[in-house]
Amino acid sequence: MKGKVVGIDIGGTNLRGALVNGSGNITKRLSIPSGADKGIGLVIENLGNLIEEIRKGEGIDGIGIGIPGIIDSTKGIITQAPNILHVHNYPFMDILRENIGNDMPVFVENDANCAALGELWKGAGEGVNSLVLLAIGTGLGGGIILDGKLWRGADGMAGEVGHMTIFPDGAKCNCGNRGCLETFSSAVGIGRMVKEGLENKSVETVLREKVESFPKGRIPEIVREAALEGDKFALWIWEEFGKALGIAIASLVNLLNVEMIVISGGLSDAWELFIDKVVGESKKRGLHAPMERIQIKKSTLGGDAGLLGAAYLVIREERQDFI
Amino acid sequence: MKGKVVGIDIGGTNLRGALVNGSGNITKRLSIPSGADKGIGLVIENLGNLIEEIRKGEGIDGIGIGIPGIIDSTKGIITQAPNILHVHNYPFMDILRENIGNDMPVFVENDANCAALGELWKGAGEGVNSLVLLAIGTGLGGGIILDGKLWRGADGMAGEVGHMTIFPDGAKCNCGNRGCLETFSSAVGIGRMVKEGLENKSVETVLREKVESFPKGRIPEIVREAALEGDKFALWIWEEFGKALGIAIASLVNLLNVEMIVISGGLSDAWELFIDKVVGESKKRGLHAPMERIQIKKSTLGGDAGLLGAAYLVIREERQDFI
Repeated sequence: MKGKVVGIDIGGTNLRGALVNGSGNITKRLSIPSGADKGIGLVIENLGNLIEEIRKGEGIDGIGIGIPGIIDSTKGIITQAPNILHVHNYPFMDILRENIGNDMPVFVENDANCAALGELWKGAGEGVNSLVLLAIGTGLGGGIILDGKLWRGADGMAGEVGHMTIFPDGAKCNCGNRGCLETFSSAVGIGRMVKEGLENKSVETVLREKVESFPKGRIPEIVREAALEGDKFALWIWEEFGKALGIAIASLVNLLNVEMIVISGGLSDAWELFIDKVVGESKKRGLHAPMERIQIKKSTLGGDAGLLGAAYLVIREERQDFI
Repeated sequence: MKGKVVGIDIGGTNLRGALVNGSGNITKRLSIPSGADKGIGLVIENLGNLIEEIRKGEGIDGIGIGIPGIIDSTKGIITQAPNILHVHNYPFMDILRENIGNDMPVFVENDANCAALGELWKGAGEGVNSLVLLAIGTGLGGGIILDGKLWRGADGMAGEVGHMTIFPDGAKCNCGNRGCLETFSSAVGIGRMVKEGLENKSVETVLREKVESFPKGRIPEIVREAALEGDKFALWIWEEFGKALGIAIASLVNLLNVEMIVISGGLSDAWELFIDKVVGESKKRGLHAPMERIQIKKSTLGGDAGLLGAAYLVIREERQDFI
């Protein structure tokens, strides 16, 4: 068992870092702006400072980093990262090494994969052997754990649960497909349903006034509030959100027969507004035996899942050292 | 490497057995009626005779058996097998042992999983590390190979590709769900489309005369012939068959980022009538990088995939011995 390690979660807005011990306890944490909108150069500089600050005076065994994008973990390359400026096949590990030196192991992984590992290690999935994590925020990401290990796929791209087709003739998705899960069960999906509803003048809803006076990023929050106040249109949106999730979960369970689905990410906070529909729809559609087995749980680590999962990359030494 | 082993494929109609060497060459083969319609007791008796006949005069290292149903491979129990009479939580291994003795390892596995292993070992998937096999016959079964190994799921039920939801409001499936892949891309699916088409009097097709004069089991064959003769309705059926497969494959690839999809089973013989639609539809829907990677191939082993995969269970000693 490793001693202390650093876990980092790179976000579009903030870099979050923590000192984590071998038992998964966080003994120090720090958060600074990521600078992702100004390009990857600044992100690396900020990351160097954050790591320096966390490891100061501590003997650490390694650093694990969760990155929002398609990651080649073996080569330490960011293949693609839509939320970080100037990133395409970027040699992240090499450049980070120039900044922080070569004196310890560094591991990188996609952020949803880190969250899945975090939940497996210390969260909702403690004790299970297989799970699929759905990270619901702006989009819908995923991480697949089979036999206690991350399934990364041939190109590190496995787990794109948000781009399972749910309604083949449905709304256009940012990926080019139609009717992806993400076009329903994500902030983007909620934004779409709100927009389409408000365009229909016969829809009566308090959202008509509220939406315009709030910034776009807060739409799911407003729809949640409206639903909790009993607004029928807002309640319908969360039902659609839950129905699409339920259809996807039934297919996932029929396909992978995992023990658990963990729902995480910012939008999982609206749990009570969608979970009944998720359970009802998935039970109606999934095969009996694997649906009997499955547990559908809310993340217990919240925003710390990614941090802990990143730390776990070092703890488990799932990765080769790049020194 | 093992010497010679026996591979068995239990079918609804026939029991097929082969003597297979460590290089995957079949040196002897035998086929007898299974008696599955008269109950599992007779199947075991026939199986005992078949094994006896194949191993006569040969020194063999073990027996691998592929079974059409839900198998608990570790305990040697058939949980469910719709095509064998009187089977529910049936202690297959124990009863077979009473019949054939305890002098060698016996391994059991679901038949589609065996086919996936067979294709990985000696077929279309030779040399790849991950694949999903779709076995298209009466229904649509599947087998998932990740990192060179079968992913069986928590209850041995993984790989039910045929019950991924494709059109949530589609036709009722035998499993209770609506719009499963199997309601399009299987003999059952073709039967449904033919029936619905013939009920619509405005549909002009040569199938109107042909279907009644042939037994039900031959419908896919007749629809294939009609399509090859240019019948528009029959061609449309194969397009729908391919479209649904393409939608499922895009979701599978986005989810698992495997290297290969292998299409096998009796209906894969109509390959040229559906493959263009499969490729077109999946390319249109799947994410760019994993779709660039994926190879969609027809089984190269045909009906021998299950036999060879069953033999491979012994060769690889993936199973514990039950002696």
